[in-house]
Amino acid sequence: MTNPIIERLAVIGCGLIGTSVMRAARAKGAAAQIVAYDANPIVRERVRELGMADLVAEEPVAAVQGADLIIFATPPAAIGPAVQAAAAGFKSGAIISDVGSVKGVVSDAMAAAAPDSVFVVPGHPIAGTEQSGPDAGFAALFEGRWTILCPRPSEQAGYQDAVERLSAFWTQLGALVELMDAAHHDRVLAVTSHLPHLIAYNIVGTAADLEQVAEGEVMKFSAGGFRYFTRIAASDPIMWRDVFLLNKDAVLEILGRFNEDLQALSRAIRWGEGDKLEALFTRTRAIRRGIVAAGQESAEPNFGRDRKTP
Amino acid sequence: MTNPIIERLAVIGCGLIGTSVMRAARAKGAAAQIVAYDANPIVRERVRELGMADLVAEEPVAAVQGADLIIFATPPAAIGPAVQAAAAGFKSGAIISDVGSVKGVVSDAMAAAAPDSVFVVPGHPIAGTEQSGPDAGFAALFEGRWTILCPRPSEQAGYQDAVERLSAFWTQLGALVELMDAAHHDRVLAVTSHLPHLIAYNIVGTAADLEQVAEGEVMKFSAGGFRYFTRIAASDPIMWRDVFLLNKDAVLEILGRFNEDLQALSRAIRWGEGDKLEALFTRTRAIRRGIVAAGQESAEPNFGRDRKTP
Repeated sequence: MTNPIIERLAVIGCGLIGTSVMRAARAKGAAAQIVAYDANPIVRERVRELGMADLVAEEPVAAVQGADLIIFATPPAAIGPAVQAAAAGFKSGAIISDVGSVKGVVSDAMAAAAPDSVFVVPGHPIAGTEQSGPDAGFAALFEGRWTILCPRPSEQAGYQDAVERLSAFWTQLGALVELMDAAHHDRVLAVTSHLPHLIAYNIVGTAADLEQVAEGEVMKFSAGGFRYFTRIAASDPIMWRDVFLLNKDAVLEILGRFNEDLQALSRAIRWGEGDKLEALFTRTRAIRRGIVAAGQESAEPNFGRDRKTP
Repeated sequence: MTNPIIERLAVIGCGLIGTSVMRAARAKGAAAQIVAYDANPIVRERVRELGMADLVAEEPVAAVQGADLIIFATPPAAIGPAVQAAAAGFKSGAIISDVGSVKGVVSDAMAAAAPDSVFVVPGHPIAGTEQSGPDAGFAALFEGRWTILCPRPSEQAGYQDAVERLSAFWTQLGALVELMDAAHHDRVLAVTSHLPHLIAYNIVGTAADLEQVAEGEVMKFSAGGFRYFTRIAASDPIMWRDVFLLNKDAVLEILGRFNEDLQALSRAIRWGEGDKLEALFTRTRAIRRGIVAAGQESAEPNFGRDRKTP
C-alpha cells in the first residue's frame, strides 16, 4: 500500500459505524496507523481482541494525539462532549469529523468544542444495519454508499484542503461523496431516514399493544410488510433517541405532512373512495420503478429474500 | 409422481399468486392436470407461452369444468363476481377456494355465488413480492410460508374432508397451513400486512410531494429506511385498493391506534422527552430480537442486502 491518505487515524466510539470505518480504512489502506477509543471499557477490550486498531487508547486525549484525522462515531448527542473531552490532544491542522445522522446542531457543537487550530468538517455516511456494537462493523459497509460532508462556512487557511482530504479518505473507503449544507442535510435525512424509522418504531409498538391479536400471531403471520418494520425498529435506541431530539424541527415538519396525508387516506378508506386509493398506489409504484430504472436498486423480488422463514 | 392430491386444478386469475400456484403445483406434482383462465386475453396468451398450464381456457365456465379444486386468484373485490361467472361449470363436490388477502366479505361473496353442491373453503397464502403479472410467479413462493384457511361454518356432508384435502394441497406446495376464523384473519392481517402497506404508500406519497427536497435526492440518499417503504409501496395498486375497501373496519381500527401512538411519540419529540423515546425503541428492538431468537428470521444484517446500490 503506497501513500495512505491519512498517516494516523483516530476513531472515537467503536460501534457499528466506528468499527466499519476502521475495518474499511485498514482493508483499503486509507490510513497508515489506526488508534481507537471507546468510553466503555468492555468495548475497548473487544476492539483489542478483534485486532481492528493498531492501538486502543485508554483515554480520549491519548487516542487523538498525533492523529491527522479524528472521526467521532459516538451517538449524535455525545459527539460535542466527546470532541470537548479529546480537544486537549488535537494536533494542529488535524481534521475533526464525525458520522452523526444529524448535522446542524452536531456540527455547531463540534465547532464550539474544537480549538481554532484544527479543521472541523462534519460528515455522515448513509449506511448501516440494524445491528450495533463493535462486532457489527464490516469493511464493505460504505461500498457504493453516499457519504455526505457538510463543510462549515470557515475562513481558515487550509480548510478547503482539509475537506478535499476527508473526501478522498471516504472515497477510498468505497463511498460516493457529496457536499451539502448542514440544514439541507437535516431536511433530506428527515424524509429519507428519520421519518421512516419513527414510523417503524411506532407501528411495532402499536402492534405489540394489541389485545385481540397475540404477539406471537403478529410475528407468525407477517410477510413482507410488518417484518421489514421490525427490522428497522431494531436499530440502536440511543442513537435514534438522539436523532429525533437533535433534528426535532425537520422531523416534526415532515411528520406533520405525513399526518395530513394519512388523514386524507384514512378518509378515502372510510368513504370507499377506491379511485383515490388506486391513484396514490399507482403513483407510488411509479416512483419505485423510477428507482429501479435508474439502476439504483435491483428489480428482483426482494420480499423473497426473507424466505428462510418459518 | 404418484397420486396427486388433486386430479384437475383450475386457477382463475393469472397474476403473481395464481401463476405461482400453478408453477408450485406442477413442480411438486400436487395436481395431475392444470387449467388456467384470466379475464385479460393478453395474460392468457402469456400463460400459454410460458407453458404453465396444460390448458388455458377462453371462458371461466370452460376453465372450471371437471376441476376438483378451483382457486380464484383475482384481486379481492373480483373474487365473488369471478365465482359467479364460473359457477355454471362447477363439478359437484369441487372445492372452491381463493387467495384473497381479505377473508370476511370475500368468503361471504364466494358462498353467495356458489351452488350448494360445492365446498367453499376460502384461503390466503401469506406470501408475495412487489411484482405482479404472469411473469412474476415462481414455484418456491409458498415454501415455508403460512397459508391460512378460513373454513365456513358449514353443515355440508364432506365439508371437513374438503378442508383436509385443500390443506394437504397447500402443504404439498411447501406451505405451513393454519385454520382460522375469517374475522380473526382480517384483524391479524390488518396489523401484520394492511397497516404496514398503508403507511408505506402514505410515506412515499408524502416524500414525493416535498418542495424543499428534490425527488432525486430522496432516492439518492435513502439507505435502509425509505427504500424499504418504496418497495412495499410498489405492490399491486388494484389488489391493495380492494384490500383497504374490503377490510375497512379492521384497518381503520388499527390505524386509529397507530395514530394515537404517533401523536404521543410526536409530543415526546416536541417536548424533548428522550427517556420515553428510548424506552419505546428499546422495547421494539426486543420484539425484533424475539423474532430472530425464535428462529423466524435470520439475524444477519439485512440492510446490507441492498448494497448493490447504486
